[in-house]
Amino acid sequence: MNNSFQEISNIILNSDDILLYPHLNMDGDAMGSAAALCRALRNAGKNCYILIEDKVADNLAFLDKGYCTENADIIAEPDLSICIDCGDESRFPERAEKFRTSKKTICIDHHRTTKEFCDFNYIDPESAATAQLIYKLIKTMNIPVDKEIGEAIFAGITTDTGNFQYSNTTEETHRIVAELYEAGIDANKVSVEIYENNRIQRLMITSRILATLETLLDGKCALCYVTQEMLDETGAMMEETEGVVQQLRAISGVEVAVFLKEKDETTTKVSMRSKSYADVAKIAATLGGGGHVRAAGATINKPVCQAMELMKTKLIESLGE
Amino acid sequence: MNNSFQEISNIILNSDDILLYPHLNMDGDAMGSAAALCRALRNAGKNCYILIEDKVADNLAFLDKGYCTENADIIAEPDLSICIDCGDESRFPERAEKFRTSKKTICIDHHRTTKEFCDFNYIDPESAATAQLIYKLIKTMNIPVDKEIGEAIFAGITTDTGNFQYSNTTEETHRIVAELYEAGIDANKVSVEIYENNRIQRLMITSRILATLETLLDGKCALCYVTQEMLDETGAMMEETEGVVQQLRAISGVEVAVFLKEKDETTTKVSMRSKSYADVAKIAATLGGGGHVRAAGATINKPVCQAMELMKTKLIESLGE
Repeated sequence: MNNSFQEISNIILNSDDILLYPHLNMDGDAMGSAAALCRALRNAGKNCYILIEDKVADNLAFLDKGYCTENADIIAEPDLSICIDCGDESRFPERAEKFRTSKKTICIDHHRTTKEFCDFNYIDPESAATAQLIYKLIKTMNIPVDKEIGEAIFAGITTDTGNFQYSNTTEETHRIVAELYEAGIDANKVSVEIYENNRIQRLMITSRILATLETLLDGKCALCYVTQEMLDETGAMMEETEGVVQQLRAISGVEVAVFLKEKDETTTKVSMRSKSYADVAKIAATLGGGGHVRAAGATINKPVCQAMELMKTKLIESLGE
Repeated sequence: MNNSFQEISNIILNSDDILLYPHLNMDGDAMGSAAALCRALRNAGKNCYILIEDKVADNLAFLDKGYCTENADIIAEPDLSICIDCGDESRFPERAEKFRTSKKTICIDHHRTTKEFCDFNYIDPESAATAQLIYKLIKTMNIPVDKEIGEAIFAGITTDTGNFQYSNTTEETHRIVAELYEAGIDANKVSVEIYENNRIQRLMITSRILATLETLLDGKCALCYVTQEMLDETGAMMEETEGVVQQLRAISGVEVAVFLKEKDETTTKVSMRSKSYADVAKIAATLGGGGHVRAAGATINKPVCQAMELMKTKLIESLGE
């Protein structure tokens, strides 16, 4: 069972040296939540840092105002360690030992799979973003929400809700953001930082990938792939192909979008998205993969061209009448 | 000076036969605003239609639940005509005469250039979307906001605010949307209808256009073009190239994004966007065009390849040190 924000608030306010642990490979919600809480706790006079083990993504670096460090000794013996937007130690493996040595631990998260593995826990899968929980926690601690805290919270909310378009967005999401505007945030500035910071290689690889587009079953399925050669030629990184599968799903009439990534000559990773009725987790399961009804994936031990053919067969089997 | 919502509300509630006039080439705000008001007025027992003169875009057709008609005689002698999201008769040219014959006219709009050209006017350039004004008007009329009205209002707001990312978004925008959630809207469903309804040709032409990408001044400028041949080969329509210039601006380090559209062999249209400091209206003015500081355009009487060279010269002149 969750502790209350009041209990967690008391624990925090009675601590002085505090480390925050967002998950590896920080997204906007992890970084925004951690930055907001770090700023709030420093404003309240605490000695607080965000302990990380990998680089902050370029488009989120504007949120790090001297908060992030890879130096675990920056606080030798923390009174308190708070893990943020992550559900177990595998999400912060190199920091797990430091986390465990803390006198007390807290988990603030919104992932459905997270168990209560800390001394104190607030896990709410109904919350669109961990940043919403952090906002409520800061309010409970009676720390004023300034512009900077507000912008970090906004960063977390807008990225985890797909700019308020995903079905996790609620009335409360918009009420909180309205309050952030009251706190003086410049939401447009945050959006420009986060979304208008693509490397040119991202556009180049996207163009190349879209040129591989194939459709199936009267346009019900759309497939694309990327190879290592395409990455080499454009200088793009594999993570810059994220977003392609959503573009495929956004085609009119497409129910299932499939994106194949050549990992090496004999390994292909496949990502699938469905729009309104198809269960892609089921298709993924037949390939030894898994996921959700609308978003799933698998690894196929075949070269990318053979994996394309296999996927077409699978799609015809599961969606063809 | 604006009339009050109360005055306008009284005029509407004292009318029976009402025609609504959204602008030509309806966007999400025009269609969402008109659909919301039409539904509300029908719920209040009025005989109400949306009079149009061009086809409703495919991705907005879900909002038309028997409201839209091209038949101006559907109401022979309207008590009231309301123009929505448009500021003068040039925005509804084929319907202008009908509009003028109405006993009373009202304008509800948020465009900065709109003058008070109707009998009653509510023009608020500070409003992120006309849909926000329609929402407030419906509330003033005491007509309950049902799910369908709410979803149409949401469609208008989300499209005109760039999914709550543009700087026109305010605290009030989010407060209104929170109330729409209370009214039971399925915002995700609306978003999927509007944004996941692209023709496959849009992706194909985007891929082709991005392949023409050139940068200038150490990546400060990004340029792309589209030709009639590229449109022919992909089967795409020129309007499906919308959005490309924003993608260019979203490249890290790019201050000015330029997109050239070949109209015919001797005419090229150019769209420009700037990110944070460049005044593209100034550059457009040197080409006989115009616009805003961050978004401007012009027509160049040259073939597209020569227009590209001209634009590069202009960019170097205005941005090179």
